[in-house]
Amino acid sequence: MRTPPTESRAERSRLAVVRLLRERGTMSRADIARSVGLSRSTVSGIIAALVADDLVVELDAKLAPAGGGAGRPGAAVMLNPASGEAIGVDFGYRHVHVIIANVAHAVRIAKSVRLPVGYDPAQGFDVASDLIRTAIDEAGTDPSRILGVGVSVPGPFDTKRGVPSSGMPSRWAGIPVATELAARLNLPVLADGDTRLGALAERRWGAARGCDEFVYLKLHGGIGGAFVSNGQLARGINGGAGEIGHLVVDATGPLCRCGNRGCLETFVGLPVVMRALEPAYGDRLTLRNVITMAWQGDRGCIRALSDAGTMAGRAVGMLGNILNPQSVIIGGALSAAGELLMGPLREAAATASLPLAGDAMTLQVGSLGPQACALGAVAMVLGETDQKLMAALGS
Amino acid sequence: MRTPPTESRAERSRLAVVRLLRERGTMSRADIARSVGLSRSTVSGIIAALVADDLVVELDAKLAPAGGGAGRPGAAVMLNPASGEAIGVDFGYRHVHVIIANVAHAVRIAKSVRLPVGYDPAQGFDVASDLIRTAIDEAGTDPSRILGVGVSVPGPFDTKRGVPSSGMPSRWAGIPVATELAARLNLPVLADGDTRLGALAERRWGAARGCDEFVYLKLHGGIGGAFVSNGQLARGINGGAGEIGHLVVDATGPLCRCGNRGCLETFVGLPVVMRALEPAYGDRLTLRNVITMAWQGDRGCIRALSDAGTMAGRAVGMLGNILNPQSVIIGGALSAAGELLMGPLREAAATASLPLAGDAMTLQVGSLGPQACALGAVAMVLGETDQKLMAALGS
Repeated sequence: MRTPPTESRAERSRLAVVRLLRERGTMSRADIARSVGLSRSTVSGIIAALVADDLVVELDAKLAPAGGGAGRPGAAVMLNPASGEAIGVDFGYRHVHVIIANVAHAVRIAKSVRLPVGYDPAQGFDVASDLIRTAIDEAGTDPSRILGVGVSVPGPFDTKRGVPSSGMPSRWAGIPVATELAARLNLPVLADGDTRLGALAERRWGAARGCDEFVYLKLHGGIGGAFVSNGQLARGINGGAGEIGHLVVDATGPLCRCGNRGCLETFVGLPVVMRALEPAYGDRLTLRNVITMAWQGDRGCIRALSDAGTMAGRAVGMLGNILNPQSVIIGGALSAAGELLMGPLREAAATASLPLAGDAMTLQVGSLGPQACALGAVAMVLGETDQKLMAALGS
Repeated sequence: MRTPPTESRAERSRLAVVRLLRERGTMSRADIARSVGLSRSTVSGIIAALVADDLVVELDAKLAPAGGGAGRPGAAVMLNPASGEAIGVDFGYRHVHVIIANVAHAVRIAKSVRLPVGYDPAQGFDVASDLIRTAIDEAGTDPSRILGVGVSVPGPFDTKRGVPSSGMPSRWAGIPVATELAARLNLPVLADGDTRLGALAERRWGAARGCDEFVYLKLHGGIGGAFVSNGQLARGINGGAGEIGHLVVDATGPLCRCGNRGCLETFVGLPVVMRALEPAYGDRLTLRNVITMAWQGDRGCIRALSDAGTMAGRAVGMLGNILNPQSVIIGGALSAAGELLMGPLREAAATASLPLAGDAMTLQVGSLGPQACALGAVAMVLGETDQKLMAALGS
């Protein structure tokens, strides 16, 4: 982080204590003093100030984990999750988005930089670090308040190994995203795949609030998905659960880079829609143009969006039969087409699904819009903090 | 249950105590005495005899749930799960199977009656009750030892409502299976769908032992499936999770009764395989004949099994992409074909799945054979008993 030259010794000590608590969750004053190499009284003074600022909470001695030593266990303290802020980074299809949000998911600031499609992850890390520093400065965020940074990475993500899954050729495969970004930021960083984070955000704050059985579909540059079963995000054995882009919706369809024919991704997604329109409309259209023209009655634009909806609907119908969700949430850029997409999607899904699954399933556009994945990254950081609190309370 | 006329008053009292413990899990002697209307000293005598027979265990007073009254809480007792037996009933495609197994899943007795395909559930209940009574008699099982009856019902099952899900037309839809059978048996009965129970059995004792991410596929009269994600059996919102039979593997394929074309069920399953062979081989073949002839080199029989394997493999590949399991276990009658089925299945699955999913996934035949679903029903009863024990121990 760009350290202001005026940072005093006291401020450095305070930040050292905050950083330690970010990493370790809950500690006694004595343990903090030992770890940062300050006197007990200095640490007690710092903690008192942090508590006064609402940045740190003192845990009831009865609730705190039992102290190792004899006598009264040093009362444990931890960062106050209720007053913290989290940074969300979304490495998107051709943007890097950064938001700072508080625990109520109110976005205090959002920054975005456009990059070429298929940009180099190293460039992404540099752009993201700069954006984060600028956002912290502009929002006037107290670095002590930052609980951590969550990162949304395109495509499937292997959380056990902490790297994007190496599946289809991708520049992100195998890169330790969290480590790379943490090295540039001196903040704790967590990473996961974009669709799982989109699902997490819609579940915490959006269209799937409190829902224990749902599917999240991201119709974007590529097609991705995630699902929650028994209240838990599915990951699969190496992070691939929910990858719906290569569900074959027409075995005689176009050749896909995965080696099959007629995968969902060959029919739906930003590039497919734009390519379908190019012969008749040229290559200057944006998705926003297409949606506007479709609402104004342009038959070609209506058809391009409707075709995408129909093929996505077939896949949703099949997914519905297998997962039997209560709800299917559609996110990603194409979801901005609203009913132009969703009407044909619903119709095709109803045909493709069995009554058992189809009758139980509602299909709707996600309610968090283009910020869903960045908000999911924030939700991941807050969830981690919540878990530390729960662990500290011994539940 | 056919009560032997010689049953004494003492035996009736003993059974009343056992039945109460089956229903309630853990109770103090005082509560038992109140509930069955016997004196405390009579109950203490019965419990002492049951403990001596290893049928009941006394819980450490410290571990038992806190007693409601003052003074020493009456030490709680419960049925000894380690010495119990469970009955598994499988309402199969054209059989009713009954087994009695102990907690180590050793099958003490197995009985089976053949019925016409699509038999009336009411007939099934009567046949099952008779089989159970005969099995108890022949095995010389002490009714006090029976922890409960588990029932495997064909097709998806809505555990929330306790009835088979009404999906495709089925004589089982909406019938309260457990209640019907319990009324005939005077024993506690639990029910679930056949594929979920097959998966449960393979996870507890078979090919998926300890596996937290796997798919179970039953290639039988129809095609069913179940999956475990994050260590939990998926159910979906109304019991339909895992229903893979209507995954479309060829959108131009044969018409299916679900209204789509080319569902997996139109290509794979006992009746489909037999129908494919009929023009050339007549209608006298059994699946066992077909498998034997195929091993002996008969090209037609090899092809019929291989075609089924190829289409099932396509579906497995697609499922693999969506669920990213560690293992796919193939059960049901067709799995008896072994490599005649599995070779083509593996090949097709490898083609249809992304490397991310395909490389991580092993495909194998289930290790529990035709008894998988009945054993799953036993596993369900034992699991329920385990849960009561855990609850009693306060964990």
